[in-house]
Amino acid sequence: MVLLLIIIPGRNYIDESIELAKKIGAEVLNVKYKVFPDGEKYVRIENSEKIMGKPVIISNTMYPSQNDSFIETLMLINASIKANASRIVAYIPYLAYSRQDKVFLTGEPVSAEIVLKTLYYTGIDCLITIDIHSEQVLKELNKCFYNIQVFDILFNNVKHLVNDPIVIAPDKGALNRAKYLADKFSLQYDYLVKERDRVTGEITIQTREIDIRNRDIVIVDDIISTGGTIAEASRKLIEKGARRVIVCASHGLLIGSAIDNIKKAGVLKIVLANTLGIRFQDPFIEYVDVSERIAKILLEVLK
Amino acid sequence: MVLLLIIIPGRNYIDESIELAKKIGAEVLNVKYKVFPDGEKYVRIENSEKIMGKPVIISNTMYPSQNDSFIETLMLINASIKANASRIVAYIPYLAYSRQDKVFLTGEPVSAEIVLKTLYYTGIDCLITIDIHSEQVLKELNKCFYNIQVFDILFNNVKHLVNDPIVIAPDKGALNRAKYLADKFSLQYDYLVKERDRVTGEITIQTREIDIRNRDIVIVDDIISTGGTIAEASRKLIEKGARRVIVCASHGLLIGSAIDNIKKAGVLKIVLANTLGIRFQDPFIEYVDVSERIAKILLEVLK
Repeated sequence: MVLLLIIIPGRNYIDESIELAKKIGAEVLNVKYKVFPDGEKYVRIENSEKIMGKPVIISNTMYPSQNDSFIETLMLINASIKANASRIVAYIPYLAYSRQDKVFLTGEPVSAEIVLKTLYYTGIDCLITIDIHSEQVLKELNKCFYNIQVFDILFNNVKHLVNDPIVIAPDKGALNRAKYLADKFSLQYDYLVKERDRVTGEITIQTREIDIRNRDIVIVDDIISTGGTIAEASRKLIEKGARRVIVCASHGLLIGSAIDNIKKAGVLKIVLANTLGIRFQDPFIEYVDVSERIAKILLEVLK
Repeated sequence: MVLLLIIIPGRNYIDESIELAKKIGAEVLNVKYKVFPDGEKYVRIENSEKIMGKPVIISNTMYPSQNDSFIETLMLINASIKANASRIVAYIPYLAYSRQDKVFLTGEPVSAEIVLKTLYYTGIDCLITIDIHSEQVLKELNKCFYNIQVFDILFNNVKHLVNDPIVIAPDKGALNRAKYLADKFSLQYDYLVKERDRVTGEITIQTREIDIRNRDIVIVDDIISTGGTIAEASRKLIEKGARRVIVCASHGLLIGSAIDNIKKAGVLKIVLANTLGIRFQDPFIEYVDVSERIAKILLEVLK
């Protein structure tokens, strides 16, 4: 069998790219990574003559070392073009800068737009990503993209830990994520509202409609960064009578003492997709391989 | 007097941008730089309402921290667009990745092309740079650019150290630089040829035509990185009877023990343009401010 697809693994995502390649019967081309004495990055795709006339999948993720990964991803795209790829699809499960998706304060850039535009201008034909913070920037570019949700896969791995849970979004912005998961498993869902008492200054967090007393909870969110939002939400939910709380997130950056803080808030388990170039070795955290879903999408895009 | 031009200083080039602003009567807008806990960069242009309808000069340089500077420069461009700049000119004296300007080995990217294309696609109308390694990539983009030479300004500051010198390019690629300086001061010029003896394996470096015995020498080059080329060339020239050797370079990265190596090779002085975000405090090195020439170009571009 002649392999017709080529996967080029980014430095942040080598093992995962090899796994993905197996699932779609693609050939993995090794990449030589180097740093020059002045700090400039260098990449070279080995056996690049195999690229000629074939579709190429650049598979990399943009955490950690966002800026370096960005440049290296652009280099792999450019090198594939120079090697005469017929089409280039980028699979970038985690897109850096996706939270700076509008001008919140005058004088700010829309960094998410910079990253996305640059990927397309450098030469990708289509982008596959997992649960981008907001799809809006991507939509406005009017290019081929697939923004994949995996909360059902994540939850499937831990559903034995909870009984008929309510799916909770920690804020209104994540409500579509809660709905996605709730619909798949016929669960109730809601989002949390943060309110500050004008007299006492006290912050209360509460669900909009559903009574959470003695109920199990699945909190869903796209990115856990320092974990402040998740820890606060979990603590308040448990204070208000929730029973067991587990967390499903697409991207677990878990910076600093995030894991400890979420543990202390009473969370039973965090379930994460394998979207990043780091993995925390802690039984509290469960990683779920989502490459099967990505493989299906890739075969659809490239068919 | 109403200020009509805006300069936005990049993090690598703040003092130099302020100096340049004085020379063209531009207003400097302060930029707030921040790093998020996950490592993502953030910029915010203060008083950005002043940008509306005006030409903006983004003034930054891409050494050190090439990849961070790249992203930050793109952010400043994007933020200026969001703030409704009428035109955007980037002054980037040192462009990172400019030496990877072709596919030297199959499977490589043309990193210089990535950097330049991205700057234009992100929104600059014109680029001003100093002595790019090779103009070819820039030319092929077919956009507005000014590639400025400053060897005459550099040499003017140290010409009292030498007597009727020969201008020497360390290789054929730098010959146009030697010619540029030689023509301005009516000097002789030549380039060095490196040859390996097929029998003994010994490397010899020699000038093509001009007898250098008892002559003073000015070596010119675009970038001094680890300094190997300059040190080797200087040593060989002195061995062959050259009297005094000084070095004029546009960009002095001077990595590791570069300065010591060049000193040991017998060089009298290195003269550099102020194109980088670092400065070595060593009397052996002289920095020359080239902002007056850049100011003239800017006023011409923006008139």
